[in-house]
Amino acid sequence: MKKTIGIIGGMGPLATVKLFEKIVLYTRADVDQDHPHTIIDSNTRIPDRTRYILQGGESPLVELKKSAVRLQEAGSDFLVMPCNTAHYFYDEIRDSVDIPFIDMIRETVNTIKKDFPDTKVGLLSTTGTISSGVYGNELNKQGIEYVTPSEAHQDAVMELIYNIKMGKLDNDLTAFRSAIGDLEAQGAKAVIMGCTELSVANDLYNLPNVVNYVDALQVLAKEAIIQSGCDINT
Amino acid sequence: MKKTIGIIGGMGPLATVKLFEKIVLYTRADVDQDHPHTIIDSNTRIPDRTRYILQGGESPLVELKKSAVRLQEAGSDFLVMPCNTAHYFYDEIRDSVDIPFIDMIRETVNTIKKDFPDTKVGLLSTTGTISSGVYGNELNKQGIEYVTPSEAHQDAVMELIYNIKMGKLDNDLTAFRSAIGDLEAQGAKAVIMGCTELSVANDLYNLPNVVNYVDALQVLAKEAIIQSGCDINT
Repeated sequence: MKKTIGIIGGMGPLATVKLFEKIVLYTRADVDQDHPHTIIDSNTRIPDRTRYILQGGESPLVELKKSAVRLQEAGSDFLVMPCNTAHYFYDEIRDSVDIPFIDMIRETVNTIKKDFPDTKVGLLSTTGTISSGVYGNELNKQGIEYVTPSEAHQDAVMELIYNIKMGKLDNDLTAFRSAIGDLEAQGAKAVIMGCTELSVANDLYNLPNVVNYVDALQVLAKEAIIQSGCDINT
Repeated sequence: MKKTIGIIGGMGPLATVKLFEKIVLYTRADVDQDHPHTIIDSNTRIPDRTRYILQGGESPLVELKKSAVRLQEAGSDFLVMPCNTAHYFYDEIRDSVDIPFIDMIRETVNTIKKDFPDTKVGLLSTTGTISSGVYGNELNKQGIEYVTPSEAHQDAVMELIYNIKMGKLDNDLTAFRSAIGDLEAQGAKAVIMGCTELSVANDLYNLPNVVNYVDALQVLAKEAIIQSGCDINT
C-alpha cells in the first residue's frame, strides 16, 4: 500500500509549488495512479519565520502545528516541510503529531556527507537559518566544516530570497554570484542551497553551474517519493 | 477575512501543479501572507475518468467525493477541480459538500462568450469530455456554436494528453498542430484548451500562438484568486 505524503507548505507558496512539481516529475509513472497521493497545506497564515527568529513577535509555531495536525487528520502517512528556516521548530512540530516527519536538514546534510565526503561546505540560506543554527548544529554534529557569506554578501542572498517570495523573477544576480564566490574564497568546495527560494532560483537561473551543490528541496522531493513507496525516475 | 481554496487534484498531478503555480504567480503579493491559503488533495487514487466514461469499470466518483469531503473538513471555504473531464461528475461532487464548488466548465464558457462573442469555437479536450458533452451541454445552453477534431485528429490530441500524464514532455507536435488546423478549417475562430494536460502543453510549447484561445486552467486560477479575496496581478 502506497503512503500518502503530507506537505506543510506556504513558506513561500512558490517553493511549495516547486517541491510538488519535483515530486511529480521525479516519480516514474505511466499513469496518474502511479504517482504518490499528496496532500498539501499551503498555509499562508504562518507568520514570517526569519523575522520571528531575529526580532521576535508572533510565533509561527501555532499555525505550523495546525497544519501538521490538519494534514494528519486528512490522512497523511508522513510529513515533509519545504522551508529550511521553519525547521527551527522541527522538534515541536514533530511532537504535535503521531506520524513521521522527514527532517529536510538532516537529509540534506546526509547527502552532503555522502556526495562530498571530507569537504568544507558553504551555506546559502536565510539569515534566520544561519543565526539559529538550523544547519550549523547538524553540520557540527556530523563533523562537517562549513562557512557562511560575509554580512554584505548575506544581504544580497536575503534580497534575492525576498524578491522571489514577492514573485519578482527577473533579478540581477551579480551580487548573489559574488556571495557564492565569497564561499569559494573561504575554501568551500560544495554549497548547500539551504533555502527553498534558492531552490526556486536554482531552477530558474541554473545558478550554481560553476559550483558543486546540494539542493535541499531536491533531496526532500526524492526522499518523499521513496518514503511513499513510489518509484523514482533515474 | 480571506477564504481558503480547496483543490481536488491528481488528475493528473502535473496539471494540479500547474493550477497551483498559476494561483501563486497570478496573485499580487509582497509577502507570503498575501497569498491565498490553499489546501490541495492530489488524490492519485482516483481512477481514470475517460476510461470510465467510455468503457465503464471502476467509477471515479467514490474517490472524488472523498477528496471533496476531506478538503471541506480540512477547512476549505470553496472547491475547485483542475480536470475538465471530471466535471462530468460535477453535480454529484457539489451535492456531497456544503461549501461552494466553482464550475470550471461554466467559467470557461462564460469567458469565451465575453472575450469572443458571436464566434464559432473549437474544442480541444479528451474523448471522454467530448463524448459525455461536458463542454457541449454548456456551450449549447449558452448558444455558442462549436466544432471538434475529426477522429484521427482527436487521436493525436489524446496521444499528447497521455504523454504529458506520463511525464513525457519532449513531444512531436506536428499531428497536434494539424488538429488545431482542422478546427480552423471547420470555421473555429477561437479554441478552448479544455483539458488540463493541454494547459500544461500550452505553457511548455506555447502551443496556440497562431490561434485565439481560452485556457480553462488559467480561467480557473484567476477565478479562485478572486473568490479567495486576494488580489490579481494585472
